[in-house]
Amino acid sequence: MINVAVLGASGYTGAELVRLLSLHPRFAIKSLSADRKAGKKYSDIFPHFRHLDLPVLSRIEDINFYDIQLVFCALPHATSQKVIKNLPKHVRIVDLSADFRLRDPKEYKKWYGSEHEATELQKKAVYGLTELYREKISNANLVACTGCNSATALIPLIPLVIKRLIALKGIIIDLATGVSGAGRVPKENMLHSEVSEGFIAYNVGKHRHLAEFDQELSAFAGKKVEVTFTPHLIPQNRGILATIYVDGDTEKIYSGLNHFYRQEPFIIILPQGFVPSTHHVRGSNYCHIGVVGDRISGKTILFSAIDNLTKGSSGQAVHKCKLDV
Amino acid sequence: MINVAVLGASGYTGAELVRLLSLHPRFAIKSLSADRKAGKKYSDIFPHFRHLDLPVLSRIEDINFYDIQLVFCALPHATSQKVIKNLPKHVRIVDLSADFRLRDPKEYKKWYGSEHEATELQKKAVYGLTELYREKISNANLVACTGCNSATALIPLIPLVIKRLIALKGIIIDLATGVSGAGRVPKENMLHSEVSEGFIAYNVGKHRHLAEFDQELSAFAGKKVEVTFTPHLIPQNRGILATIYVDGDTEKIYSGLNHFYRQEPFIIILPQGFVPSTHHVRGSNYCHIGVVGDRISGKTILFSAIDNLTKGSSGQAVHKCKLDV
Amino acid sequence: MINVAVLGASGYTGAELVRLLSLHPRFAIKSLSADRKAGKKYSDIFPHFRHLDLPVLSRIEDINFYDIQLVFCALPHATSQKVIKNLPKHVRIVDLSADFRLRDPKEYKKWYGSEHEATELQKKAVYGLTELYREKISNANLVACTGCNSATALIPLIPLVIKRLIALKGIIIDLATGVSGAGRVPKENMLHSEVSEGFIAYNVGKHRHLAEFDQELSAFAGKKVEVTFTPHLIPQNRGILATIYVDGDTEKIYSGLNHFYRQEPFIIILPQGFVPSTHHVRGSNYCHIGVVGDRISGKTILFSAIDNLTKGSSGQAVHKCKLDV
Amino acid sequence: MINVAVLGASGYTGAELVRLLSLHPRFAIKSLSADRKAGKKYSDIFPHFRHLDLPVLSRIEDINFYDIQLVFCALPHATSQKVIKNLPKHVRIVDLSADFRLRDPKEYKKWYGSEHEATELQKKAVYGLTELYREKISNANLVACTGCNSATALIPLIPLVIKRLIALKGIIIDLATGVSGAGRVPKENMLHSEVSEGFIAYNVGKHRHLAEFDQELSAFAGKKVEVTFTPHLIPQNRGILATIYVDGDTEKIYSGLNHFYRQEPFIIILPQGFVPSTHHVRGSNYCHIGVVGDRISGKTILFSAIDNLTKGSSGQAVHKCKLDV
Repeated sequence: MINVAVLGASGYTGAELVRLLSLHPRFAIKSLSADRKAGKKYSDIFPHFRHLDLPVLSRIEDINFYDIQLVFCALPHATSQKVIKNLPKHVRIVDLSADFRLRDPKEYKKWYGSEHEATELQKKAVYGLTELYREKISNANLVACTGCNSATALIPLIPLVIKRLIALKGIIIDLATGVSGAGRVPKENMLHSEVSEGFIAYNVGKHRHLAEFDQELSAFAGKKVEVTFTPHLIPQNRGILATIYVDGDTEKIYSGLNHFYRQEPFIIILPQGFVPSTHHVRGSNYCHIGVVGDRISGKTILFSAIDNLTKGSSGQAVHKCKLDV
Repeated sequence: MINVAVLGASGYTGAELVRLLSLHPRFAIKSLSADRKAGKKYSDIFPHFRHLDLPVLSRIEDINFYDIQLVFCALPHATSQKVIKNLPKHVRIVDLSADFRLRDPKEYKKWYGSEHEATELQKKAVYGLTELYREKISNANLVACTGCNSATALIPLIPLVIKRLIALKGIIIDLATGVSGAGRVPKENMLHSEVSEGFIAYNVGKHRHLAEFDQELSAFAGKKVEVTFTPHLIPQNRGILATIYVDGDTEKIYSGLNHFYRQEPFIIILPQGFVPSTHHVRGSNYCHIGVVGDRISGKTILFSAIDNLTKGSSGQAVHKCKLDV
Repeated sequence: MINVAVLGASGYTGAELVRLLSLHPRFAIKSLSADRKAGKKYSDIFPHFRHLDLPVLSRIEDINFYDIQLVFCALPHATSQKVIKNLPKHVRIVDLSADFRLRDPKEYKKWYGSEHEATELQKKAVYGLTELYREKISNANLVACTGCNSATALIPLIPLVIKRLIALKGIIIDLATGVSGAGRVPKENMLHSEVSEGFIAYNVGKHRHLAEFDQELSAFAGKKVEVTFTPHLIPQNRGILATIYVDGDTEKIYSGLNHFYRQEPFIIILPQGFVPSTHHVRGSNYCHIGVVGDRISGKTILFSAIDNLTKGSSGQAVHKCKLDV
Repeated sequence: MINVAVLGASGYTGAELVRLLSLHPRFAIKSLSADRKAGKKYSDIFPHFRHLDLPVLSRIEDINFYDIQLVFCALPHATSQKVIKNLPKHVRIVDLSADFRLRDPKEYKKWYGSEHEATELQKKAVYGLTELYREKISNANLVACTGCNSATALIPLIPLVIKRLIALKGIIIDLATGVSGAGRVPKENMLHSEVSEGFIAYNVGKHRHLAEFDQELSAFAGKKVEVTFTPHLIPQNRGILATIYVDGDTEKIYSGLNHFYRQEPFIIILPQGFVPSTHHVRGSNYCHIGVVGDRISGKTILFSAIDNLTKGSSGQAVHKCKLDV
């Protein structure tokens, strides 16, 4: 059994971690932190856990890390780096924030607007796409979970870039995500009254996950790749569907993806002609991928669906740990 | 044309007032106030009004009331009374808050927790159930719109109390409401992620609209009436359905309601055996009422559906003005 | 390992059975039937099962029952009895339909409109409320799962009837259910366009689950009990919340329920003053119960929330089998 | 007053026509047809019209067209042409089906799979994009309303094609639509249980509205234009948002659209940097257009939002008639 602490357990990714860890035979949840809600029972924050015997919420400074082997850090961006740099050295860390995703401090500053406060750790952190970085992850002390949007689109794109099956210019990622990605902190535009019946794009041409697309696609291509990326908000809680427009031969793309992911337990390439739905991956760690040829020859449309809280965040976090610890 | 100011125009009832007034041939919207958003275009707050030529949002103290004849006050409870007591005497006021619904200052203090700051006005205010207080409303300088839940259940109940067609003891009002009634101020429990797939009761046995039930039913009965009232939250934006359990003869109740409301334009008694849906009154000022006999003899179940923002608030507000100004 | 067949696997309760059985260490799914979809892969009907290795859908007559020990029958009402009476004697059967819930053939005919075609089996079938009929269920060859609405309200009511903590007259069950209970057969009133923003009551005073309330409450009370029951449809997929009005002392009711269910793994009595939400039991087999005193002395409001597909149907079905086979 | 008949009034576009016509001062609804529901009251089919005095539903053959001047035909595709070719010559017709949108019988056969049965009328019909074909519409006897998806994307695209502000190759229309576009006929994939939490693409690379894009963009460009078009289904009732990727200068595109539509009452070009939401056009005849420059120079992203039942169908139908009759 691996003893685990979850920092920032009062948000949605925290709750999803607790759900997955409590169902998993190899993990024991020893500590749950939530500074502002310290002292409360976890089931008063998330009543669907009322049947579980879980630790009372504590402050991070009150956690005894002595018998913790693994820390899941589900704290907000910027807070995460401050906390992680002060954690004891013996714990392995899976960070769900954006703080350690970008390897280049300049890129970090460009996209997140401030200097990184733990640049030494930033260099050592491994980008947490399990299917692509499995070996590095198994040796890492700090793994940075990917952005939920990034995971959705990178999973089908990277193999095609590696195998040179698509043009590197002109890739368009049109993506729609459920609202739980925005977290549990109250915001006007996340109220039910605002979200319902309202499909809208946001952060057009400037979403921070662009930095992850740039970093990863360029790294695997061996040269600079820039994509167009438009996220939308769907009036539903969970799930991301990416619709990706690429130039490349549909048959080769289909067989290429099938071959690349033939042994991956969580990647499902649908039969040709099928398209995935967010409904079909809800609550699961699976990524469903569809490949459809456009009527215009040479153009292919990729579809990739995940649950943003599971494969897009907490599920990928737990997946990593099953492999490497 | 009646010149109108809407105070507190940045909330949902404010927006609904603007929608109804802008469609109405007899009203001219002269001022829209929203203190924290003063200076903004109304369409930046509510983009569905982008095609209308509306006043820029202002602070209340910057409104020139000289040429205003009618004020709709859509401010929060407690704020409303402070603002209204300082308004110029020539304006007629329709208040959408709870501040002037209760005639007894002691009851106000009991349910709202503080002393009323405009007790003189409180005495003169008319409770805004148009169908029941039409004449008083037409002579009033200050009308207090009813609570949205109160309107839903009082419309079918009061005629039955007047006509003595139901027992006064044991009335149970089980009610479900959409989330827009909770307003536009961000709250965790109104996030889409929390509301969706979550049907729940709230304020059981202690909702403030109980005070209105007590006041009105007792007044029309000529003696103290106490009801049981359980509100629920529905995962939808608009609409209230009350399911009301009474002891009384179904046929007499049905014909009694039909007769009482036979000339009312906004009250629809459904054919017997039909039940109303919130879907059928969405965006309208209608109240749909259904009457069904229970299988247990002598028990009748009443259903009443309205749109909480329209008949439950802004629509009843405008309705009053059509009648009286 | 227990070898299992699921008859009628193409509906929502069938899919929920497959979900629960595939996660459970003691069951092996050997056959899945769906007459009109025989020959299809299960994942083409329910793509969220694409990662599982499941039997292709077959016709019931093509199932080899030789090595099946347990049959879950998720067929439509009336069909179920015809199929079950012809099943081999060695299989134990859990029926999710309404066919074997009523012990009295006359009551069956009254509520379901036709003669029962397997009255011998009907006599032997055990009503599947695990918490109340545990011993009988463990010896039964045929268990009839309860109606989803019936389960929701009977779980809190029966102990109070047994302990004589509430008046038997005047019990009112006001209940709201998600749409998945209506099944997967297309119907106009279950379209998203119709359901969304539409809260409505249905089958008022005549819902068939009344027969189960009559049978069970009367049996445990030792005399005839008749309740008032009003089901509503909520614009959400899963979950039932019952709001139950009873005459009885709140403190005694609260401690009575706590004591009665103190050892039951799937019944959670909430802390006093808390009310359950369908959101908190989604996808789980738990029943969350809240007890709140009305402001009117002597009146108590009970809340009971379950997931209609899990505790209300497939979950209770699997729960029974864990206990008895 | 113009006397109007609505054929096929029992579907959603029919109901939307009735809503708009009943609110409009210049139209009198004389007949409502719905063959299978003939004899029923309209308010039994759509209870939100209970307050209106509307004709009872009739069969088409029972309509007296003698005093009808205008017919709205909201019948299914293929049925529409059979009915329209037999209508009396004196009536003007606005057809909401797809039957008369394509001018070339070969294209019709290619996309709809059968020979057109009214090719003479097909030649004379005018494609109903009011903003682009205003004069032709005002002289037409038969106007074919556009597809709802086609209208959404053609409104921003055609002016840019006319003004040669975008490349004709590589246009990508990524679009999401609410479920009411699928109509009121029950289908499994339109059930609330299936739609909710499920964002999915459909008819990828082969949706019939491609034929309208081909026809109209090629006509205005003066040469063959082929676009990529991917429709998605949103878990909401109403609204379409198109996200359109084009090669062209953002500033020129923005000012070009502003200038082209400067006098159009129903086209709103948002301030730069703003994106439209389906929420903001719900129930209205407005088209909200946003223009955003991609971070990749020379690429522009257009957004266009309409209500599929209003501007996408019944609203555009009524709009045409205001102009031309």
